Amino acid sequence: MVMEANSAVDANGRGAFGQRIMELADRLAQWSESADGLTCTYLSPAHRSAAAQLRDWMHQAGMTAEIDAAGNVVGRHAADERAAKTLIIASHYDTVRNAGKYDGRLGVLTALALVEHLQRSGRKLPFHLEVIAFSEEEGMRFSTPYIGSSAVAGKFDMGVLERRDPQGDRMIDAMCEAGLDPQAIPALVRRPQDLLGYLEVHIEQGPVLLQENLPVGVVTTIAGTVRHRVTITGTAGHAGTVPMPLRRDAATAAAEIVLYVERRCAAVPTLVGTVGQLTVPNGAINIIPGCCELTLDIRAGEDAIREAAVTDVLAEIGRIAQRRGVTIEAKEVVRGNNVPCTPRIQQLLADAVGRAGVPIRYLPSGAGHDAMLFAGVTDIGMLFVRCGNGGVSHSPREIITAEDADIAGRVLLDAVIQMGAKP
Amino acid sequence: MVMEANSAVDANGRGAFGQRIMELADRLAQWSESADGLTCTYLSPAHRSAAAQLRDWMHQAGMTAEIDAAGNVVGRHAADERAAKTLIIASHYDTVRNAGKYDGRLGVLTALALVEHLQRSGRKLPFHLEVIAFSEEEGMRFSTPYIGSSAVAGKFDMGVLERRDPQGDRMIDAMCEAGLDPQAIPALVRRPQDLLGYLEVHIEQGPVLLQENLPVGVVTTIAGTVRHRVTITGTAGHAGTVPMPLRRDAATAAAEIVLYVERRCAAVPTLVGTVGQLTVPNGAINIIPGCCELTLDIRAGEDAIREAAVTDVLAEIGRIAQRRGVTIEAKEVVRGNNVPCTPRIQQLLADAVGRAGVPIRYLPSGAGHDAMLFAGVTDIGMLFVRCGNGGVSHSPREIITAEDADIAGRVLLDAVIQMGAKP
Repeated sequence: MVMEANSAVDANGRGAFGQRIMELADRLAQWSESADGLTCTYLSPAHRSAAAQLRDWMHQAGMTAEIDAAGNVVGRHAADERAAKTLIIASHYDTVRNAGKYDGRLGVLTALALVEHLQRSGRKLPFHLEVIAFSEEEGMRFSTPYIGSSAVAGKFDMGVLERRDPQGDRMIDAMCEAGLDPQAIPALVRRPQDLLGYLEVHIEQGPVLLQENLPVGVVTTIAGTVRHRVTITGTAGHAGTVPMPLRRDAATAAAEIVLYVERRCAAVPTLVGTVGQLTVPNGAINIIPGCCELTLDIRAGEDAIREAAVTDVLAEIGRIAQRRGVTIEAKEVVRGNNVPCTPRIQQLLADAVGRAGVPIRYLPSGAGHDAMLFAGVTDIGMLFVRCGNGGVSHSPREIITAEDADIAGRVLLDAVIQMGAKP
Repeated sequence: MVMEANSAVDANGRGAFGQRIMELADRLAQWSESADGLTCTYLSPAHRSAAAQLRDWMHQAGMTAEIDAAGNVVGRHAADERAAKTLIIASHYDTVRNAGKYDGRLGVLTALALVEHLQRSGRKLPFHLEVIAFSEEEGMRFSTPYIGSSAVAGKFDMGVLERRDPQGDRMIDAMCEAGLDPQAIPALVRRPQDLLGYLEVHIEQGPVLLQENLPVGVVTTIAGTVRHRVTITGTAGHAGTVPMPLRRDAATAAAEIVLYVERRCAAVPTLVGTVGQLTVPNGAINIIPGCCELTLDIRAGEDAIREAAVTDVLAEIGRIAQRRGVTIEAKEVVRGNNVPCTPRIQQLLADAVGRAGVPIRYLPSGAGHDAMLFAGVTDIGMLFVRCGNGGVSHSPREIITAEDADIAGRVLLDAVIQMGAKP
């Protein structure tokens, strides 16, 4: 690796960011609930160990650091002037089951590596920098995502404290057992007037940058999601004895829905529609399905595109039910509009990408991210990093390269420094 | 109910068969593994109680009766002449989970009511009559159907004794614990030269007789089945981040298979095709399915019709895999050809149906039955009884009427008496 000087990274050698981020990601992945693979869900022993590890690294990087009432690990690199505003750089450290090492963690560790660099170079910023490793974004344990970021953004719903995990344990009890103080969550909220902005680096979790051979991209908007749970009720029957014209098969109705969603969403570029769960409950090889359950998830780069698709899918579901003589219930379970990234921050990141010698690619995020929670609270921006292996995420096959992580680190540092420059 | 004389039933009043059969079915259904509903699987306590109950009823009907080495309850109404041949009238007393009261049991109880009638009327037949309640036909506990009938027909595979139920218990151990002697199973086989034939009354388990407003029908053939387990492997991905054209979604491929099976099988009258199991293992609402599993069950009134459909379905599966860039493995797990009922017995039953004043309807059986096992061993015949509630079976909603059961009993008695008449 050639170590050459680069104006955007001060004395930091090209490649050092990337190597450090990869090393930290490997070390953090050692804390797992599962013997093989990485699983780190909210307040599990592995999760608490990962939090302690992150806090230690923050301390070593010269930050004050603590685990807050929601389990977030919050490190502070203070400016000289106490009254200065605060820039938050954050992402999450929890994972899905059998996860990759970079989803969420890449953003935390890139920020950490950035502060390590500031410490090494003795550089002070004209604002406070808060590196936050959010405790929970994936919604695995309590079916509630964004626990950590919603607390800091002032959007935490205290009602979810009563939720139970699959073992029947309440969230509030799990928090108390972990030494957290749920009653202190409302006090975690940051005042908008104290904030300079919110930045998040995240693995793309898709194939767009990979396909276009680009290491990073600037996020324009975080796509909202409309989700439904669909239950189809037909008539069960013996697979050998009911003639085809007399059947009311719930699974064939489901198949029609699945293919309509695919066809409708393929017709518009940024539109995506997914049937992720599909099952015939208690199905048997020789019984005509009397019931079939499926989920719908529809997103797009623009709210209007998504809404038109949702309307069409629900209308088609109605037609399928009528034509097949089955009952179909579609229950909306999630509805979120798109969240645009602040144009000023997009520009700041794009300028830094350009200075790193990388073609500037703007792209929407199809996945939800902690950054969404800060929309309306402060200016937000996100930088995506290329995802290898075809763009796979939520999988042990999720990979990035040290080279791409390095570019992300340098772009982030450049953007942070520019944020402190007088406009 | 008008009690009028009927030549086919001797002194038995019209309606008495039906009332008795319904009463016996209700009483037998009281032995269940589940607190509510009827479940009676091989060698469970409920199953063993049901066997003892049947044996008692056979004794009360003047038969010699015993529970054999396979758990079958075998009652014998002997002819005066010891060297006479034996007519078997049989069906099964085990059930699926959450079953109806008539699947299998109707055939046993109709035969029992018939012998009760012979006893009451003091009538002797010129052949031995064996009423057999087969212990196992559904294949629930050990995923092996026809345990009881295969033993009597000489088609029992001793290898299945090593099979384990979902709790891990071996069949051979379950049999020994129930006081059965597995090593005596080979001795249960009847010699073809000793048999006069095999008759079975069974609920239709379909809607054909119901649709045509007929109480009973004569079975022409028992349809063979070809079954496959199909596994589709695509590429999992984030539901929000992978553009539609870049997806290799296992569930959309499955949906195409499901609809092709339906379309192909609907094109030919007696052909039926079913995807009874359909699931995305570990599916999540926000993950593109990387895997989907389904089962195929294809049957028809003629082997050639079924085989042509199977060939077409497998070819289409190949085309779907290629077009979508997914891997699809289709593993054949069952292959059985159609089993025709003996024309002489069909005629005998049809004549009796006609004498009962009922239009004669011949129909194939889409479901498998114990009778199949006796093809090649002796002459076989089956009488179907109308299934209410749209033809639903394998369900607590399975019903028949006492009137239809009565007609079935009278037709069976008439046919049995005619069997003893000189040709």
